[in-house]
Amino acid sequence: MGASRSFRPYDGTVNGSVEDSTTVEVDAAVAAATAAAPQLAATPPRRRAVWWYTVAQALVAAQDELAALADAETALGTARLEGEVDRAAGQLRFYSDVAAEGSHLGIAVDSATETTPELRRVHQPLGPVAVFGASNFPFAFGSLGHDTASALAAGCPVIVKAHPAHPLLSVRLVELAQDALAAAGAPDGTISTVHGMAAGVALVQHPQVRAVGFTGSQGGGLALWRAANERDVVVPVFAEMGTVNPVVVTAAGASDPARIAAGYVESFTLGSGQFCTKPGLLLVPSGAGVAAAVADRLARTPAPAPLLTRSIAEAAAGGVADMAAAGARVVARVPGTGAGWAVDTTVLTAPAAALTGGSRLLEECFAPVSVVVEYASSEELDGVLSRLQGCLVGAVMTGGESDPDAPRVVAQLATKAGRVAVDTWPTGVALGWAQHHGGPWPATTSPAHTSVGASALARWVRPVVYQSAPAAWLPDAGRPGNPWGVTRCVDGVREPARRAEVDHPAASGSSAS
Amino acid sequence: MGASRSFRPYDGTVNGSVEDSTTVEVDAAVAAATAAAPQLAATPPRRRAVWWYTVAQALVAAQDELAALADAETALGTARLEGEVDRAAGQLRFYSDVAAEGSHLGIAVDSATETTPELRRVHQPLGPVAVFGASNFPFAFGSLGHDTASALAAGCPVIVKAHPAHPLLSVRLVELAQDALAAAGAPDGTISTVHGMAAGVALVQHPQVRAVGFTGSQGGGLALWRAANERDVVVPVFAEMGTVNPVVVTAAGASDPARIAAGYVESFTLGSGQFCTKPGLLLVPSGAGVAAAVADRLARTPAPAPLLTRSIAEAAAGGVADMAAAGARVVARVPGTGAGWAVDTTVLTAPAAALTGGSRLLEECFAPVSVVVEYASSEELDGVLSRLQGCLVGAVMTGGESDPDAPRVVAQLATKAGRVAVDTWPTGVALGWAQHHGGPWPATTSPAHTSVGASALARWVRPVVYQSAPAAWLPDAGRPGNPWGVTRCVDGVREPARRAEVDHPAASGSSAS
Repeated sequence: MGASRSFRPYDGTVNGSVEDSTTVEVDAAVAAATAAAPQLAATPPRRRAVWWYTVAQALVAAQDELAALADAETALGTARLEGEVDRAAGQLRFYSDVAAEGSHLGIAVDSATETTPELRRVHQPLGPVAVFGASNFPFAFGSLGHDTASALAAGCPVIVKAHPAHPLLSVRLVELAQDALAAAGAPDGTISTVHGMAAGVALVQHPQVRAVGFTGSQGGGLALWRAANERDVVVPVFAEMGTVNPVVVTAAGASDPARIAAGYVESFTLGSGQFCTKPGLLLVPSGAGVAAAVADRLARTPAPAPLLTRSIAEAAAGGVADMAAAGARVVARVPGTGAGWAVDTTVLTAPAAALTGGSRLLEECFAPVSVVVEYASSEELDGVLSRLQGCLVGAVMTGGESDPDAPRVVAQLATKAGRVAVDTWPTGVALGWAQHHGGPWPATTSPAHTSVGASALARWVRPVVYQSAPAAWLPDAGRPGNPWGVTRCVDGVREPARRAEVDHPAASGSSAS
Repeated sequence: MGASRSFRPYDGTVNGSVEDSTTVEVDAAVAAATAAAPQLAATPPRRRAVWWYTVAQALVAAQDELAALADAETALGTARLEGEVDRAAGQLRFYSDVAAEGSHLGIAVDSATETTPELRRVHQPLGPVAVFGASNFPFAFGSLGHDTASALAAGCPVIVKAHPAHPLLSVRLVELAQDALAAAGAPDGTISTVHGMAAGVALVQHPQVRAVGFTGSQGGGLALWRAANERDVVVPVFAEMGTVNPVVVTAAGASDPARIAAGYVESFTLGSGQFCTKPGLLLVPSGAGVAAAVADRLARTPAPAPLLTRSIAEAAAGGVADMAAAGARVVARVPGTGAGWAVDTTVLTAPAAALTGGSRLLEECFAPVSVVVEYASSEELDGVLSRLQGCLVGAVMTGGESDPDAPRVVAQLATKAGRVAVDTWPTGVALGWAQHHGGPWPATTSPAHTSVGASALARWVRPVVYQSAPAAWLPDAGRPGNPWGVTRCVDGVREPARRAEVDHPAASGSSAS
């Protein structure tokens, strides 16, 4: 058996290690989840919310400890990480509230007519979900992040595959959740964790695992997607992966190059450039002086924090070299600390003609690395945009509502991205009912789905329609009288949920996010 | 170049033939669809409805001609086929009305707060959709069937891959639709058709084709799904495929074996057993006399009509032989006509122990062939049900609301099927808001989706969220004031659509369905 060693990115020293899970341990985790699934599914979302709110409270109560542990494994800084603990707690509460509203249940009723039967549709939780969290947001997209929180809220037990970038934190987070859930009376097996690459593959292949959530690299996500597609019973893999997110500055939007440069540098260096929404490509009008302003800004920017892992740092250095080989030129660089998984902040520039299909310049470099490209005409800009891969987010910096170029750019970005941001940088994903954090292939394996926002729950359920069934034989959620008080579609007309308080322990006791 | 020969299943004579499409023709069809896509997407659903209603009118106006042509190619009988023309017309109207309600647009608005931006989500039509219709319902699931009608309603152009079982009808149907659409002012390229297996593969691999709808065999559907998964940009394949649909008769439900037998025989022989909802497995209590009653009923049942194609007829004969080799025994048979693609109606029986994973008895035989299995105990019944593949529909025949076994059977069927029917046979799929015609893998490639019912439109769209965008730069559907009057989610609260008449030509001029 192997083990995951936990490294301190600041200096490369070892924090400790966690042994890989055995096959027996993986089977036990899945069996426990399978046993918990029916009780989770049958419990009203307003009642399940008590459990998830309890986990949120436990997170916030352990905020300092968790942030310190995470910083030792990720070098993301305790201030940012403390905020992220609050954010993860807020997510658990948000998805609990969304579940109580019940859109994900898809309740629809067609009343019987003289010629047609009564139909009552109820979406059912899929059962055990395997979650492969991200390295770059150890709380918000980690073991207890969006995938886990939305799956639990939808009524599915979760088996977390711990990320090798922060194995000690993964252990601690799931222990904390298990303790909170046990105290709150949730079934055993509601959440558990496994370690090691073999355990991850075993999870995806396990007959009782019904869906997979993944956040990370294209290589990792597509490998899991292929493994799931080879099962006897194929299950969905919802992988949110990295691609290049473009930001277009229109001619009218380029009037203040220093302001653009300041926003751009702040955005692409956030978290040492390890955001899936990082602007990897800045498209600016020729001659507007944006590239020079970026170089100037970078000259006044401190050294970046080290990257999450040695392999990410190595890939970043290799990526810059590959981009140079693909026709880009380094225009500004901020040397890294030199210690641990250090990296240089690097801005390159390339001619628009170099951005052709298959170019390394159109692939993500997961680091504080970004490319500035000048376009000479709207035709050239359109050409570059049309050759981009699908992405999570595209942004446009404009001259305001009268900007003649902006509507066309917005429309074109909408064909490539899951989110189009106007006069705002792409990093930062607000959590709400309308949010969509997804995008066309290969930004995700399932462009219709989101990993952030109320609709994230939709990934973990499957419709079943009951034809002419007596009320007592229906799942509670779909019975006449709407006992769970959720939103429904009755004979084609949408009914809002009956607003009632979630039965949770005082939410006011925990921080807002 | 090859050609699709059209056969008359009654006697095996040739009706005519249609030449396979060339690569140039496939490219031209996709290019025309691609050109039409923006106009379709930008036209309000209430206005698009005019176009689809016009197609429905044209179908009904040509009802006699179409039914006669279809009968020559399918042997399904003109009475049934005339009704199916009405049904297909009704589907076009239904999906038009559903699009006007607008759930598929997923409009959601999060108002800006002090700390979060305004978000406005709008689902966008995917663009050109390739539809591979079914052979067994040449109108309802054919070239202008559910997949085509729902894709058009959602605002996507459609390229139909003509089914080789009815190539002449496919040509005629698409011509008819094109003529109607041209007269109504819809863009060229809204619908077109291609012929031949190579053209079908080219469609699925074409970079401009954004999604695939398929209804048919597991072999065909999974081949397309694999081909789509090998694209540079993978696209979804929504395949609805054949599996064995179980019907359970509880102890209390078996009190009148003759009634059970009559319903069963009628159901599994409908359309010569060529329904995707055919009951392929009847599970009856030991000693209740149901098998004998079925044999008795079959002795008074006329010869079945021939099957759709020679290959289906050959597969049916082979299937019965394979089932016998897998431990089943023929208990009753009605000889076929002997002419054309004739088939025997066949009922087999097998011990419950023979229904093990991988057995031929757990795979579909697309013909008037079904298997009766007696179970000795509820444990034995549970065991059989747990070993079934995912299926479109399961049914239970009960002793009424006090039946002690029925709730457990309903719950177990819900884990295997997309629809659970109570005291009604599984054949027949009502069209409505709540309907779900789908099911767990391998009944479909996408168990979250349906090919029948209001939610069928959801397959053909993709979310995009606009962050802080001026109203004028948004797609009309998502603008403030809700100009399309569709259902929305505003700050977490569902709003019903503003009910307004669809701007269609007098719907009363066409038959009800």
